[in-house]
Amino acid sequence: MEEIKVFCPATIANVSCGFDVLGLALDSVGDEMIIRKTSEKGITITKISGQELPLETTKNVSGVAGLAFLEKSDFDGGFEIEIDKRIKPGSGIGSSAASSAGAVWAMNELLGKPFSNLELVQFAMQGEKLASDVAHADNVAPAIYGGFTLVRSYNPLDIVPIPTPNELFATVIHPQIEVKTSDSRKILKTNITLEKGIQQWGNVGGLIAGLFQNDYDLIGRSLQDHIVEPIRSILIPGFDKIKANAIHVGALGGGISGSGPSIFALSKGEKIAQKVAESMKETYKNIGIEFDIHVSKVNTQGVKRIS
Amino acid sequence: MEEIKVFCPATIANVSCGFDVLGLALDSVGDEMIIRKTSEKGITITKISGQELPLETTKNVSGVAGLAFLEKSDFDGGFEIEIDKRIKPGSGIGSSAASSAGAVWAMNELLGKPFSNLELVQFAMQGEKLASDVAHADNVAPAIYGGFTLVRSYNPLDIVPIPTPNELFATVIHPQIEVKTSDSRKILKTNITLEKGIQQWGNVGGLIAGLFQNDYDLIGRSLQDHIVEPIRSILIPGFDKIKANAIHVGALGGGISGSGPSIFALSKGEKIAQKVAESMKETYKNIGIEFDIHVSKVNTQGVKRIS
Repeated sequence: MEEIKVFCPATIANVSCGFDVLGLALDSVGDEMIIRKTSEKGITITKISGQELPLETTKNVSGVAGLAFLEKSDFDGGFEIEIDKRIKPGSGIGSSAASSAGAVWAMNELLGKPFSNLELVQFAMQGEKLASDVAHADNVAPAIYGGFTLVRSYNPLDIVPIPTPNELFATVIHPQIEVKTSDSRKILKTNITLEKGIQQWGNVGGLIAGLFQNDYDLIGRSLQDHIVEPIRSILIPGFDKIKANAIHVGALGGGISGSGPSIFALSKGEKIAQKVAESMKETYKNIGIEFDIHVSKVNTQGVKRIS
Repeated sequence: MEEIKVFCPATIANVSCGFDVLGLALDSVGDEMIIRKTSEKGITITKISGQELPLETTKNVSGVAGLAFLEKSDFDGGFEIEIDKRIKPGSGIGSSAASSAGAVWAMNELLGKPFSNLELVQFAMQGEKLASDVAHADNVAPAIYGGFTLVRSYNPLDIVPIPTPNELFATVIHPQIEVKTSDSRKILKTNITLEKGIQQWGNVGGLIAGLFQNDYDLIGRSLQDHIVEPIRSILIPGFDKIKANAIHVGALGGGISGSGPSIFALSKGEKIAQKVAESMKETYKNIGIEFDIHVSKVNTQGVKRIS
């Protein structure tokens, strides 16, 4: 195989209570990439459509992730990358992670899978570092593993795939305002109260237990973030209303997707997820904010080959 | 049924990463209690053997828990309580919780189970409040539900029973020094760094996932506490050695049981748990500290009727 075309899913990181550790992959939102083996060494980005992004290898997240891959590989050649960028950068649904994860997953396929998923996450994290100064894994891990993932530890890196209940759907609304990941990290406090910490790890435990048991109510009760959401939501106009209305029409719960500004809600079944979408649209129309909106099943496969 | 005799298990709270939220019940260590229906209203503690503890109802944790039970019950009479106290108070393996949980569980049986486990935990928490000023649930919940339990939230109280892998054994050593729960809470800091919080909820997620999947390695990797253990372990002579040696001979991991001074380790299989016990004994013999030691399967039943 000399060339592969892949779908690179958008992802929701943090998932309310799981700041920096939890993430999930989406099914109906993502980029497409073509990766091609070359005899020439190194990584060349030949084409980017959909968004204005740097073609220079060391300035593009997929280039940087690809270089990290090549450095550990014994492959003698290189790769060309074409990106059809459909996820808007800065939207909070893992735009950079999709490119980084998609690139290294595809390269691994082309070489006959020399690397494990865990190693691919490590390469892709280099792309994340370029994008946001922090090599976080909570978007690239679900993009590569699919479904829900837990980053149990960063040092050493330990990724735990978590099962996904079959009827779990996400609704994600992206208000057309920009919040940079690096900025939204800066406003966080470096200390938290032990009391809030206890609430948070109680909820993380509850969410994981709910996912294992298909206990949608428990999932809903656990989707609470007393630490990051109260601070970051200030940057997102209409956040409280969007969330309250989503829960009012039947969502299990919701919060900020990654570092925002996208807001997500999880629901049991597509029908409710669509109702949640209607409610979100309505809310932003009333406030007068432009938006994109997506309804998606949780994608349990991660990056996948489409041709 | 007019009288019931019950076994009231010792419990390990916190279980390393799960401060204030996780707990597990033991099988081979516990008190015995006899609870008897009386036509007279109120709670009378008629006999306590094994330890010097107050017979006065409002000063005894089982009395206080029993009064909380009676207050919500439409039962017209009362109860007599006899306690054979085998768990030493202040040992850190849920001595007060065993009495509180045992009393209300037995009363509930005698009246034909009018209350749910969740309600029983709420009554028993009143006993905990008497014992340590804080109505914590991380010992009484596993004592009543059995196995591992997660206190997802205190307000409202939300207890999640977590499945227990079949080969999971605990080794617990109790050095003969006294650490009061209230004192060992006072030395904790009210603030923690967000960074340590992230490590902690990553580990709680990992431990829950490990328990659901019978993944003993993941359980072991997740048994880490970067917040409370570094502070409280200072109060426990030989802690670092006991823990390191236990892991060296095969324990999955370990930590402080509750607020200490008992130290626990979890192992896969009784054989390793016994080896861990030998190693712990050896360590304390070398340091010259008197101790009790227990090896126990995790008790998945909680309080149980013995006659």
